[in-house]
Amino acid sequence: MSLIVVGSVALDTIETPHGRVSDALGGSAVHFALAASMLAPVRLVGQIGRDLPERALEPLRRRGVDLRGLQRKDGKTFRWSGRYSSDMNQRETVSVELNVFGQYAPEIPPAFRTSRFVFLANGSPEHQMQVLDQMRGPCFAVVDTMDHWIHSSRPVLAALFKRVQAVVVNDSEARLLSGEEFFLRAAGKILRMGPKYVIVKKGEHGAVMVGKDGTFVIPAFPTGEVRDPTGAGDTFAGGMMGYLARRGRVTSATLRRGIAYGTVLASFNVEDFGVRRVASLTLPRVEARLREFRKMLKF
Amino acid sequence: MSLIVVGSVALDTIETPHGRVSDALGGSAVHFALAASMLAPVRLVGQIGRDLPERALEPLRRRGVDLRGLQRKDGKTFRWSGRYSSDMNQRETVSVELNVFGQYAPEIPPAFRTSRFVFLANGSPEHQMQVLDQMRGPCFAVVDTMDHWIHSSRPVLAALFKRVQAVVVNDSEARLLSGEEFFLRAAGKILRMGPKYVIVKKGEHGAVMVGKDGTFVIPAFPTGEVRDPTGAGDTFAGGMMGYLARRGRVTSATLRRGIAYGTVLASFNVEDFGVRRVASLTLPRVEARLREFRKMLKF
Repeated sequence: MSLIVVGSVALDTIETPHGRVSDALGGSAVHFALAASMLAPVRLVGQIGRDLPERALEPLRRRGVDLRGLQRKDGKTFRWSGRYSSDMNQRETVSVELNVFGQYAPEIPPAFRTSRFVFLANGSPEHQMQVLDQMRGPCFAVVDTMDHWIHSSRPVLAALFKRVQAVVVNDSEARLLSGEEFFLRAAGKILRMGPKYVIVKKGEHGAVMVGKDGTFVIPAFPTGEVRDPTGAGDTFAGGMMGYLARRGRVTSATLRRGIAYGTVLASFNVEDFGVRRVASLTLPRVEARLREFRKMLKF
Repeated sequence: MSLIVVGSVALDTIETPHGRVSDALGGSAVHFALAASMLAPVRLVGQIGRDLPERALEPLRRRGVDLRGLQRKDGKTFRWSGRYSSDMNQRETVSVELNVFGQYAPEIPPAFRTSRFVFLANGSPEHQMQVLDQMRGPCFAVVDTMDHWIHSSRPVLAALFKRVQAVVVNDSEARLLSGEEFFLRAAGKILRMGPKYVIVKKGEHGAVMVGKDGTFVIPAFPTGEVRDPTGAGDTFAGGMMGYLARRGRVTSATLRRGIAYGTVLASFNVEDFGVRRVASLTLPRVEARLREFRKMLKF
Protein backbone atom coordinates (compact mmCIF):
# COMPACT_ATOMS: atom_id res chain seq x y z
CA MET A 1 0.00 0.00 0.00
CA SER A 2 0.99 3.60 -0.54
CA LEU A 3 3.50 5.08 1.88
CA ILE A 4 4.52 8.73 2.07
CA VAL A 5 7.27 10.40 4.08
CA VAL A 6 7.54 14.13 4.65
CA GLY A 7 10.80 15.34 6.10
CA SER A 8 14.23 16.73 5.44
CA VAL A 9 16.60 16.10 2.58
CA ALA A 10 20.00 17.29 3.73
CA LEU A 11 23.68 17.53 3.04
CA ASP A 12 25.38 16.15 6.12
CA THR A 13 28.92 16.64 7.33
CA ILE A 14 29.67 14.00 9.92
CA GLU A 15 32.73 13.31 11.98
CA THR A 16 33.13 10.19 14.12
CA PRO A 17 36.21 8.46 15.53
CA HIS A 18 36.03 6.27 12.40
CA GLY A 19 36.23 9.02 9.81
CA ARG A 20 34.50 11.96 8.24
CA VAL A 21 32.18 12.74 5.33
CA SER A 22 31.31 16.16 3.87
CA ASP A 23 28.07 17.19 2.21
CA ALA A 24 26.82 13.62 2.02
CA LEU A 25 23.19 12.91 1.19
CA GLY A 26 21.22 12.66 4.42
CA GLY A 27 18.13 13.96 6.19
CA SER A 28 15.25 12.21 7.87
CA ALA A 29 13.17 11.66 4.73
CA VAL A 30 16.16 10.20 2.87
CA HIS A 31 17.14 7.71 5.60
CA PHE A 32 13.50 6.74 6.02
CA ALA A 33 12.87 6.32 2.29
CA LEU A 34 15.98 4.24 1.63
CA ALA A 35 14.97 1.79 4.34
CA ALA A 36 11.23 1.72 3.61
CA SER A 37 11.69 1.37 -0.14
CA MET A 38 13.28 -2.04 0.39
CA LEU A 39 9.83 -3.24 1.42
CA ALA A 40 7.25 -1.02 -0.33
CA PRO A 41 7.00 1.84 -2.83
CA VAL A 42 7.75 5.17 -1.17
CA ARG A 43 6.67 8.73 -1.96
CA LEU A 44 8.97 11.43 -0.67
CA VAL A 45 8.03 15.04 0.04
CA GLY A 46 10.72 17.56 0.85
CA GLN A 47 12.69 20.54 -0.34
CA ILE A 48 16.16 20.94 -1.74
CA GLY A 49 18.10 23.96 -2.94
CA ARG A 50 19.85 24.64 -6.20
CA ASP A 51 23.12 23.32 -4.82
CA LEU A 52 22.18 19.67 -4.41
CA PRO A 53 23.59 17.84 -7.41
CA GLU A 54 21.07 15.71 -9.30
CA ARG A 55 23.38 12.68 -9.06
CA ALA A 56 23.20 12.83 -5.24
CA LEU A 57 19.60 11.62 -5.58
CA GLU A 58 20.66 8.47 -7.45
CA PRO A 59 20.36 6.15 -4.41
CA LEU A 60 16.70 7.17 -4.03
CA ARG A 61 15.96 6.79 -7.75
CA ARG A 62 17.60 3.37 -7.84
CA ARG A 63 15.12 2.26 -5.17
CA GLY A 64 12.23 3.65 -7.18
CA VAL A 65 11.38 6.33 -4.61
CA ASP A 66 8.75 8.63 -6.12
CA LEU A 67 10.38 12.07 -6.05
CA ARG A 68 7.51 14.09 -7.51
CA GLY A 69 7.08 15.67 -4.09
CA LEU A 70 10.71 16.74 -3.86
CA GLN A 71 10.77 20.42 -4.76
CA ARG A 72 13.84 22.31 -5.82
CA LYS A 73 13.65 25.84 -4.44
CA ASP A 74 15.80 28.92 -4.84
CA GLY A 75 18.36 28.84 -2.09
CA LYS A 76 20.57 26.25 -0.47
CA THR A 77 19.82 22.76 0.76
CA PHE A 78 19.44 22.06 4.49
CA ARG A 79 22.88 21.39 5.93
CA TRP A 80 23.67 19.62 9.17
CA SER A 81 27.06 19.03 10.68
CA GLY A 82 27.71 16.83 13.70
CA ARG A 83 30.47 15.16 15.63
CA TYR A 84 30.33 11.98 17.73
CA SER A 85 32.32 11.16 20.85
CA SER A 86 34.40 8.00 21.09
CA ASP A 87 31.57 5.92 22.57
CA MET A 88 29.15 7.19 19.88
CA ASN A 89 26.55 7.97 22.52
CA GLN A 90 27.23 11.68 22.63
CA ARG A 91 26.46 13.74 19.56
CA GLU A 92 27.41 17.36 19.24
CA THR A 93 25.69 19.43 16.57
CA VAL A 94 28.45 21.53 15.05
CA SER A 95 26.18 23.59 12.82
CA VAL A 96 22.69 23.67 11.33
CA GLU A 97 21.68 25.69 8.28
CA LEU A 98 17.96 25.21 7.71
CA ASN A 99 18.09 27.03 4.36
CA VAL A 100 15.13 25.98 2.19
CA PHE A 101 13.97 23.40 4.76
CA GLY A 102 11.55 25.08 7.09
CA GLN A 103 11.03 28.14 4.90
CA TYR A 104 8.28 26.49 2.91
CA ALA A 105 5.22 24.70 4.11
CA PRO A 106 5.16 21.16 2.75
CA GLU A 107 3.05 20.76 -0.38
CA ILE A 108 1.67 17.29 -0.91
CA PRO A 109 1.22 16.52 -4.62
CA PRO A 110 -2.44 15.63 -5.31
CA ALA A 111 -1.43 12.13 -6.40
CA PHE A 112 0.10 11.51 -2.96
CA ARG A 113 -2.83 12.71 -0.83
CA THR A 114 -4.58 9.38 -0.51
CA SER A 115 -1.45 7.59 0.79
CA ARG A 116 -2.53 5.03 3.38
CA PHE A 117 0.66 5.16 5.45
CA VAL A 118 2.07 8.54 6.43
CA PHE A 119 5.34 9.24 8.22
CA LEU A 120 5.82 12.76 9.53
CA ALA A 121 9.57 12.85 10.07
CA ASN A 122 10.98 15.19 12.67
CA GLY A 123 10.14 18.81 11.83
CA SER A 124 7.99 21.70 12.96
CA PRO A 125 4.66 20.43 14.40
CA GLU A 126 2.91 23.21 12.45
CA HIS A 127 4.24 21.78 9.19
CA GLN A 128 3.43 18.25 10.32
CA MET A 129 -0.15 19.39 10.98
CA GLN A 130 -0.34 20.98 7.50
CA VAL A 131 0.62 17.64 5.99
CA LEU A 132 -2.24 15.88 7.78
CA ASP A 133 -4.61 18.64 6.62
CA GLN A 134 -3.74 17.84 3.02
CA MET A 135 -4.27 14.08 3.32
CA ARG A 136 -7.52 12.52 2.11
CA GLY A 137 -9.20 9.42 3.49
CA PRO A 138 -8.17 7.23 6.42
CA CYS A 139 -4.48 6.68 6.98
CA PHE A 140 -2.07 5.25 9.53
CA ALA A 141 -0.07 8.35 10.47
CA VAL A 142 3.07 8.19 12.57
CA VAL A 143 4.87 11.25 13.91
CA ASP A 144 8.46 11.71 15.02
CA THR A 145 9.58 14.77 16.96
CA MET A 146 12.49 16.04 19.03
CA ASP A 147 13.31 17.97 22.22
CA HIS A 148 13.37 21.32 20.38
CA TRP A 149 9.68 21.03 19.39
CA ILE A 150 8.66 19.62 22.74
CA HIS A 151 10.09 22.74 24.35
CA SER A 152 8.89 25.29 21.79
CA SER A 153 5.63 23.90 20.37
CA ARG A 154 4.00 21.70 22.97
CA PRO A 155 0.40 22.86 22.33
CA VAL A 156 0.62 22.15 18.58
CA LEU A 157 2.30 18.83 19.31
CA ALA A 158 -0.52 17.93 21.70
CA ALA A 159 -3.10 18.71 19.02
CA LEU A 160 -1.09 16.67 16.52
CA PHE A 161 -0.90 13.67 18.87
CA LYS A 162 -4.72 13.54 18.85
CA ARG A 163 -4.67 13.08 15.07
CA VAL A 164 -1.99 10.41 14.62
CA GLN A 165 -2.04 6.69 15.29
CA ALA A 166 1.50 6.38 16.60
CA VAL A 167 4.31 8.48 18.03
CA VAL A 168 7.97 7.56 17.63
CA VAL A 169 10.32 9.14 20.17
CA ASN A 170 13.61 8.35 21.79
CA ASP A 171 13.81 7.68 25.51
CA SER A 172 14.88 11.17 26.56
CA GLU A 173 12.10 12.71 24.46
CA ALA A 174 9.59 10.36 26.08
CA ARG A 175 10.73 11.58 29.49
CA LEU A 176 10.58 15.20 28.37
CA LEU A 177 7.10 14.83 26.87
CA SER A 178 5.65 13.10 29.92
CA GLY A 179 7.66 14.37 32.86
CA GLU A 180 8.03 10.72 33.90
CA GLU A 181 11.40 9.08 34.61
CA PHE A 182 10.45 5.48 33.76
CA PHE A 183 9.63 4.83 30.17
CA LEU A 184 6.64 2.59 30.88
CA ARG A 185 4.96 5.40 32.78
CA ALA A 186 6.19 7.93 30.23
CA ALA A 187 4.69 5.86 27.44
CA GLY A 188 1.43 5.52 29.38
CA LYS A 189 1.15 9.28 29.68
CA ILE A 190 1.89 9.82 25.99
CA LEU A 191 -0.81 7.26 25.09
CA ARG A 192 -3.28 9.34 27.06
CA MET A 193 -2.41 12.28 24.79
CA GLY A 194 -4.07 10.50 21.87
CA PRO A 195 -2.05 7.98 19.84
CA LYS A 196 -2.81 4.27 19.90
CA TYR A 197 0.86 3.32 20.04
CA VAL A 198 4.02 4.86 21.43
CA ILE A 199 7.29 3.53 20.10
CA VAL A 200 10.30 4.43 22.23
CA LYS A 201 13.67 4.15 20.47
CA LYS A 202 16.55 3.40 22.82
CA GLY A 203 19.38 3.36 20.26
CA GLU A 204 21.89 0.63 21.02
CA HIS A 205 19.48 -0.67 23.66
CA GLY A 206 16.62 -1.45 21.29
CA ALA A 207 13.03 -0.29 21.31
CA VAL A 208 9.77 -0.68 23.17
CA MET A 209 6.24 -0.28 21.84
CA VAL A 210 3.41 0.36 24.24
CA GLY A 211 -0.17 0.23 23.03
CA LYS A 212 -3.66 -0.62 24.13
CA ASP A 213 -2.97 -4.25 23.21
CA GLY A 214 0.17 -4.64 25.31
CA THR A 215 3.87 -4.00 25.39
CA PHE A 216 6.50 -5.16 22.90
CA VAL A 217 10.18 -5.17 23.78
CA ILE A 218 13.06 -5.74 21.38
CA PRO A 219 16.80 -5.33 21.93
CA ALA A 220 19.03 -3.82 19.26
CA PHE A 221 20.77 -6.23 16.89
CA PRO A 222 24.29 -6.40 18.31
CA THR A 223 26.48 -5.18 15.51
CA GLY A 224 30.22 -5.23 16.01
CA GLU A 225 30.83 -2.09 14.01
CA VAL A 226 29.34 1.30 14.72
CA ARG A 227 30.88 3.83 12.41
CA ASP A 228 28.15 6.47 12.18
CA PRO A 229 24.78 6.37 14.00
CA THR A 230 23.32 9.29 11.98
CA GLY A 231 19.90 8.42 10.61
CA ALA A 232 19.46 5.21 12.60
CA GLY A 233 16.15 6.40 14.06
CA ASP A 234 14.69 7.29 10.65
CA THR A 235 16.01 4.05 9.18
CA PHE A 236 14.26 2.21 12.02
CA ALA A 237 10.98 4.04 11.30
CA GLY A 238 11.44 3.38 7.57
CA GLY A 239 11.80 -0.35 8.14
CA MET A 240 8.74 -0.38 10.36
CA MET A 241 6.50 1.65 8.03
CA GLY A 242 7.82 -0.09 4.92
CA TYR A 243 6.82 -3.42 6.40
CA LEU A 244 3.37 -2.14 7.41
CA ALA A 245 2.80 -0.75 3.90
CA ARG A 246 3.96 -4.05 2.39
CA ARG A 247 1.51 -6.01 4.53
CA GLY A 248 -1.21 -3.40 4.03
CA ARG A 249 -2.68 -3.66 7.51
CA VAL A 250 -1.81 -2.63 11.03
CA THR A 251 -2.20 -5.19 13.76
CA SER A 252 -0.15 -5.86 16.87
CA ALA A 253 1.58 -8.63 14.89
CA THR A 254 2.46 -6.53 11.81
CA LEU A 255 3.64 -3.66 14.02
CA ARG A 256 5.93 -5.97 15.97
CA ARG A 257 7.30 -7.54 12.80
CA GLY A 258 7.74 -4.05 11.35
CA ILE A 259 9.71 -2.93 14.39
CA ALA A 260 11.93 -6.00 13.99
CA TYR A 261 12.63 -5.01 10.37
CA GLY A 262 13.33 -1.47 11.53
CA THR A 263 15.71 -2.74 14.19
CA VAL A 264 17.67 -4.83 11.71
CA LEU A 265 17.78 -2.05 9.11
CA ALA A 266 19.04 0.40 11.75
CA SER A 267 21.83 -2.05 12.63
CA PHE A 268 23.00 -1.92 9.00
CA ASN A 269 22.69 1.87 8.87
CA VAL A 270 25.20 2.44 11.67
CA GLU A 271 27.85 0.25 10.05
CA ASP A 272 28.91 2.90 7.56
CA PHE A 273 28.70 6.64 7.03
CA GLY A 274 25.51 8.37 5.93
CA VAL A 275 23.29 6.29 3.68
CA ARG A 276 26.08 4.13 2.22
CA ARG A 277 25.23 0.85 3.87
CA VAL A 278 21.45 0.93 3.50
CA ALA A 279 21.63 2.29 -0.07
CA SER A 280 23.60 -0.77 -1.17
CA LEU A 281 21.59 -3.32 0.80
CA THR A 282 19.39 -6.06 -0.64
CA LEU A 283 16.25 -7.49 0.94
CA PRO A 284 17.67 -11.04 1.16
CA ARG A 285 20.59 -9.64 3.17
CA VAL A 286 18.15 -7.91 5.55
CA GLU A 287 16.09 -11.05 5.92
CA ALA A 288 19.19 -13.15 6.57
CA ARG A 289 20.10 -10.83 9.44
CA LEU A 290 16.53 -10.97 10.72
CA ARG A 291 16.78 -14.77 10.84
CA GLU A 292 20.14 -14.50 12.61
CA PHE A 293 18.55 -12.06 15.07
CA ARG A 294 15.68 -14.47 15.80
CA LYS A 295 18.21 -17.13 16.71
CA MET A 296 19.96 -14.71 19.06
CA LEU A 297 16.69 -13.99 20.84
CA LYS A 298 15.53 -17.56 21.29
CA PHE A 299 15.18 -19.08 24.76
CA MET B 1 22.13 -30.65 41.16
CA SER B 2 24.20 -29.09 43.90
CA LEU B 3 24.78 -25.33 43.71
CA ILE B 4 27.12 -23.33 45.92
CA VAL B 5 27.59 -19.58 46.22
CA VAL B 6 30.51 -17.93 47.94
CA GLY B 7 30.17 -14.22 48.58
CA SER B 8 29.16 -11.51 50.97
CA VAL B 9 26.45 -11.46 53.59
CA ALA B 10 25.90 -7.84 54.50
CA LEU B 11 23.88 -5.30 56.36
CA ASP B 12 22.89 -2.67 53.81
CA THR B 13 21.76 0.88 54.32
CA ILE B 14 20.17 2.08 51.13
CA GLU B 15 18.65 5.39 50.17
CA THR B 16 16.73 5.93 46.94
CA PRO B 17 14.18 8.58 45.93
CA HIS B 18 11.55 6.03 47.03
CA GLY B 19 12.73 5.57 50.60
CA ARG B 20 15.41 4.26 52.87
CA VAL B 21 16.31 1.09 54.78
CA SER B 22 18.96 0.66 57.49
CA ASP B 23 20.97 -2.45 58.28
CA ALA B 24 18.81 -4.62 56.02
CA LEU B 25 19.95 -8.11 55.06
CA GLY B 26 21.90 -7.92 51.80
CA GLY B 27 25.15 -8.93 50.16
CA SER B 28 25.92 -10.75 46.95
CA ALA B 29 25.57 -14.28 48.36
CA VAL B 30 22.22 -13.44 49.94
CA HIS B 31 20.67 -11.93 46.82
CA PHE B 32 22.03 -14.80 44.76
CA ALA B 33 20.80 -17.49 47.17
CA LEU B 34 17.30 -16.08 47.54
CA ALA B 35 16.84 -16.10 43.77
CA ALA B 36 18.57 -19.43 43.06
CA SER B 37 16.79 -21.26 45.89
CA MET B 38 13.48 -20.78 44.11
CA LEU B 39 14.77 -23.23 41.52
CA ALA B 40 17.30 -25.53 43.22
CA PRO B 41 18.82 -26.23 46.66
CA VAL B 42 21.55 -23.71 47.47
CA ARG B 43 24.61 -23.91 49.70
CA LEU B 44 25.89 -20.59 50.97
CA VAL B 45 29.43 -19.83 52.11
CA GLY B 46 30.21 -16.53 53.79
CA GLN B 47 31.04 -14.76 57.01
CA ILE B 48 29.00 -12.72 59.44
CA GLY B 49 29.90 -10.96 62.67
CA ARG B 50 28.41 -11.23 66.12
CA ASP B 51 26.08 -8.32 65.40
CA LEU B 52 23.89 -9.94 62.74
CA PRO B 53 20.71 -11.07 64.49
CA GLU B 54 19.81 -14.70 63.93
CA ARG B 55 16.30 -13.72 62.79
CA ALA B 56 17.78 -11.71 59.91
CA LEU B 57 18.67 -15.04 58.31
CA GLU B 58 15.05 -16.21 58.34
CA PRO B 59 14.42 -15.45 54.63
CA LEU B 60 17.31 -17.78 53.73
CA ARG B 61 16.19 -20.53 56.12
CA ARG B 62 12.62 -20.37 54.82
CA ARG B 63 13.98 -21.13 51.37
CA GLY B 64 15.97 -24.06 52.68
CA VAL B 65 19.35 -22.47 51.93
CA ASP B 66 22.07 -24.62 53.51
CA LEU B 67 23.87 -22.29 55.88
CA ARG B 68 26.50 -24.72 57.18
CA GLY B 69 29.08 -22.67 55.31
CA LEU B 70 28.02 -19.39 56.94
CA GLN B 71 30.54 -18.73 59.68
CA ARG B 72 29.98 -16.36 62.54
CA LYS B 73 33.28 -14.67 63.37
CA ASP B 74 34.35 -12.30 66.11
CA GLY B 75 33.81 -8.81 64.83
CA LYS B 76 31.15 -6.99 62.88
CA THR B 77 29.26 -7.95 59.76
CA PHE B 78 30.14 -6.40 56.40
CA ARG B 79 28.24 -3.13 56.04
CA TRP B 80 27.50 -1.26 52.86
CA SER B 81 25.71 2.02 52.49
CA GLY B 82 24.65 3.53 49.17
CA ARG B 83 22.51 6.23 47.67
CA TYR B 84 20.82 6.32 44.26
CA SER B 85 20.14 9.35 42.09
CA SER B 86 16.65 10.11 40.81
CA ASP B 87 17.09 8.12 37.60
CA MET B 88 18.47 5.13 39.58
CA ASN B 89 21.35 4.83 37.13
CA GLN B 90 23.90 6.53 39.33
CA ARG B 91 24.88 4.88 42.57
CA GLU B 92 27.05 6.54 45.14
CA THR B 93 28.72 4.37 47.77
CA VAL B 94 28.34 6.30 51.00
CA SER B 95 30.41 3.92 53.10
CA VAL B 96 31.88 0.43 53.13
CA GLU B 97 33.00 -1.44 56.26
CA LEU B 98 34.46 -4.78 55.22
CA ASN B 99 34.70 -5.98 58.83
CA VAL B 100 34.76 -9.81 58.92
CA PHE B 101 34.24 -10.07 55.14
CA GLY B 102 37.61 -10.11 53.48
CA GLN B 103 39.55 -10.82 56.67
CA TYR B 104 39.11 -14.55 56.39
CA ALA B 105 39.77 -16.81 53.47
CA PRO B 106 36.64 -18.69 52.51
CA GLU B 107 36.43 -22.19 53.98
CA ILE B 108 34.31 -24.61 52.02
CA PRO B 109 32.72 -27.26 54.27
CA PRO B 110 33.81 -30.74 53.09
CA ALA B 111 30.17 -31.64 52.31
CA PHE B 112 30.02 -28.70 49.84
CA ARG B 113 33.23 -29.44 47.94
CA THR B 114 31.69 -31.62 45.25
CA SER B 115 29.05 -29.02 44.29
CA ARG B 116 28.49 -29.21 40.54
CA PHE B 117 27.56 -25.54 40.10
CA VAL B 118 29.72 -22.88 41.68
CA PHE B 119 29.10 -19.14 41.78
CA LEU B 120 31.99 -16.97 42.88
CA ALA B 121 30.21 -13.74 43.74
CA ASN B 122 32.12 -10.48 43.56
CA GLY B 123 35.10 -10.52 45.92
CA SER B 124 38.87 -10.67 45.94
CA PRO B 125 40.16 -12.83 43.06
CA GLU B 126 42.61 -14.42 45.50
CA HIS B 127 39.73 -15.65 47.64
CA GLN B 128 37.79 -16.71 44.55
CA MET B 129 40.81 -18.77 43.50
CA GLN B 130 41.02 -20.36 46.96
CA VAL B 131 37.42 -21.48 46.59
CA LEU B 132 38.19 -23.23 43.30
CA ASP B 133 41.23 -24.87 44.93
CA GLN B 134 38.95 -26.45 47.53
CA MET B 135 36.43 -27.83 45.05
CA ARG B 136 36.59 -31.48 44.01
CA GLY B 137 35.54 -32.98 40.70
CA PRO B 138 34.26 -31.20 37.61
CA CYS B 139 32.00 -28.21 38.08
CA PHE B 140 30.45 -25.36 36.14
CA ALA B 141 32.08 -22.36 37.79
CA VAL B 142 30.95 -18.79 37.13
CA VAL B 143 32.78 -15.74 38.39
CA ASP B 144 31.57 -12.20 38.98
CA THR B 145 33.96 -9.32 39.56
CA MET B 146 34.07 -5.52 39.65
CA ASP B 147 36.16 -2.54 38.56
CA HIS B 148 38.12 -2.49 41.84
CA TRP B 149 39.55 -5.99 41.23
CA ILE B 150 40.12 -5.35 37.54
CA HIS B 151 42.30 -2.40 38.52
CA SER B 152 44.07 -3.97 41.49
CA SER B 153 44.30 -7.73 40.74
CA ARG B 154 44.35 -8.18 36.99
CA PRO B 155 46.98 -10.99 36.96
CA VAL B 156 45.04 -13.13 39.48
CA LEU B 157 41.83 -12.41 37.63
CA ALA B 158 43.44 -13.54 34.38
CA ALA B 159 44.55 -16.80 36.02
CA LEU B 160 41.05 -17.25 37.45
CA PHE B 161 39.42 -16.71 34.04
CA LYS B 162 41.36 -19.71 32.74
CA ARG B 163 39.74 -21.92 35.38
CA VAL B 164 36.07 -20.89 35.13
CA GLN B 165 33.44 -21.72 32.53
CA ALA B 166 31.73 -18.34 32.52
CA VAL B 167 32.30 -14.73 33.52
CA VAL B 168 29.48 -12.38 34.51
CA VAL B 169 30.28 -8.67 34.24
CA ASN B 170 28.42 -5.47 33.65
CA ASP B 171 29.02 -3.46 30.49
CA SER B 172 31.48 -0.98 31.98
CA GLU B 173 33.49 -3.83 33.53
CA ALA B 174 33.56 -5.60 30.16
CA ARG B 175 35.03 -2.45 28.60
CA LEU B 176 37.53 -2.09 31.42
CA LEU B 177 38.62 -5.73 31.21
CA SER B 178 39.06 -5.69 27.46
CA GLY B 179 39.93 -2.12 26.57
CA GLU B 180 37.25 -2.37 23.86
CA GLU B 181 34.42 0.13 23.51
CA PHE B 182 31.85 -2.15 21.86
CA PHE B 183 30.60 -4.98 23.98
CA LEU B 184 30.72 -7.58 21.21
CA ARG B 185 34.42 -6.97 20.76
CA ALA B 186 34.88 -6.66 24.52
CA ALA B 187 33.16 -10.01 25.01
CA GLY B 188 35.29 -11.57 22.28
CA LYS B 189 38.46 -10.47 24.02
CA ILE B 190 37.27 -11.77 27.40
CA LEU B 191 36.46 -15.14 25.77
CA ARG B 192 40.04 -15.34 24.60
CA MET B 193 41.11 -15.03 28.25
CA GLY B 194 39.66 -18.47 28.96
CA PRO B 195 35.96 -18.80 29.77
CA LYS B 196 33.50 -20.49 27.41
CA TYR B 197 30.83 -17.85 28.00
CA VAL B 198 30.78 -14.17 28.81
CA ILE B 199 27.54 -12.76 30.17
CA VAL B 200 27.31 -8.98 30.04
CA LYS B 201 24.69 -7.44 32.32
CA LYS B 202 23.32 -4.14 31.08
CA GLY B 203 20.94 -3.39 33.95
CA GLU B 204 17.71 -1.85 32.67
CA HIS B 205 18.88 -2.64 29.13
CA GLY B 206 19.02 -6.40 29.57
CA ALA B 207 21.88 -8.81 29.01
CA VAL B 208 23.96 -10.43 26.31
CA MET B 209 25.73 -13.78 26.39
CA VAL B 210 28.56 -14.45 23.98
CA GLY B 211 29.98 -17.93 23.64
CA LYS B 212 31.56 -20.28 21.19
CA ASP B 213 28.09 -21.36 20.10
CA GLY B 214 26.79 -17.89 19.32
CA THR B 215 25.31 -14.77 20.84
CA PHE B 216 22.16 -14.48 22.95
CA VAL B 217 20.46 -11.13 23.48
CA ILE B 218 17.66 -10.40 25.94
CA PRO B 219 16.14 -7.08 26.99
CA ALA B 220 15.22 -6.37 30.60
CA PHE B 221 11.65 -7.07 31.65
CA PRO B 222 10.07 -3.60 31.62
CA THR B 223 8.90 -3.11 35.16
CA GLY B 224 7.01 0.08 35.98
CA GLU B 225 8.45 0.37 39.46
CA VAL B 226 12.11 0.64 40.30
CA ARG B 227 12.47 1.33 43.99
CA ASP B 228 15.91 -0.12 44.72
CA PRO B 229 18.25 -1.74 42.18
CA THR B 230 20.65 -3.10 44.85
CA GLY B 231 21.38 -6.78 44.30
CA ALA B 232 19.79 -7.00 40.85
CA GLY B 233 22.99 -8.39 39.31
CA ASP B 234 23.33 -11.14 41.93
CA THR B 235 19.63 -11.93 41.69
CA PHE B 236 20.09 -12.26 37.92
CA ALA B 237 23.04 -14.64 38.41
CA GLY B 238 21.06 -16.56 41.03
CA GLY B 239 18.16 -17.11 38.64
CA MET B 240 20.53 -18.26 35.93
CA MET B 241 22.55 -20.65 38.08
CA GLY B 242 19.46 -21.89 39.93
CA TYR B 243 17.91 -22.86 36.62
CA LEU B 244 21.10 -24.58 35.44
CA ALA B 245 21.32 -26.55 38.70
CA ARG B 246 17.64 -27.50 38.41
CA ARG B 247 18.16 -28.78 34.87
CA GLY B 248 21.49 -30.36 35.80
CA ARG B 249 23.23 -29.65 32.53
CA VAL B 250 24.73 -26.72 30.70
CA THR B 251 23.84 -26.28 27.05
CA SER B 252 23.24 -23.18 24.98
CA ALA B 253 19.50 -23.79 25.53
CA THR B 254 19.64 -24.16 29.33
CA LEU B 255 21.95 -21.16 29.63
CA ARG B 256 19.56 -19.00 27.60
CA ARG B 257 16.57 -20.19 29.61
CA GLY B 258 18.55 -19.59 32.80
CA ILE B 259 19.35 -16.03 31.75
CA ALA B 260 15.65 -15.47 31.08
CA TYR B 261 14.83 -16.64 34.62
CA GLY B 262 17.58 -14.36 35.93
CA THR B 263 16.19 -11.43 33.97
CA VAL B 264 12.69 -11.93 35.35
CA LEU B 265 13.92 -12.44 38.93
CA ALA B 266 16.01 -9.26 38.68
CA SER B 267 12.91 -7.35 37.56
CA PHE B 268 11.17 -8.41 40.79
CA ASN B 269 14.23 -7.59 42.88
CA VAL B 270 14.22 -3.90 41.90
CA GLU B 271 10.55 -3.43 42.80
CA ASP B 272 11.22 -3.18 46.53
CA PHE B 273 14.06 -2.50 48.93
CA GLY B 274 16.75 -5.04 49.68
CA VAL B 275 15.60 -8.66 49.51
CA ARG B 276 11.94 -7.96 50.35
CA ARG B 277 10.41 -8.71 47.00
CA VAL B 278 12.39 -11.82 46.07
CA ALA B 279 12.17 -13.25 49.60
CA SER B 280 8.38 -13.28 49.40
CA LEU B 281 8.14 -14.51 45.81
CA THR B 282 6.74 -17.85 44.65
CA LEU B 283 7.86 -19.83 41.62
CA PRO B 284 4.42 -19.70 39.96
CA ARG B 285 4.58 -15.88 40.15
CA VAL B 286 8.03 -15.93 38.51
CA GLU B 287 6.83 -18.27 35.80
CA ALA B 288 3.75 -16.16 35.15
CA ARG B 289 5.99 -13.16 34.55
CA LEU B 290 8.24 -15.24 32.33
CA ARG B 291 5.21 -16.14 30.20
CA GLU B 292 4.17 -12.48 30.11
CA PHE B 293 7.74 -11.60 29.06
CA ARG B 294 7.69 -14.15 26.24
CA LYS B 295 4.54 -12.50 24.89
CA MET B 296 6.24 -9.11 25.02
CA LEU B 297 9.16 -10.42 22.97
CA LYS B 298 7.17 -12.16 20.25
CA PHE B 299 7.31 -10.96 16.67
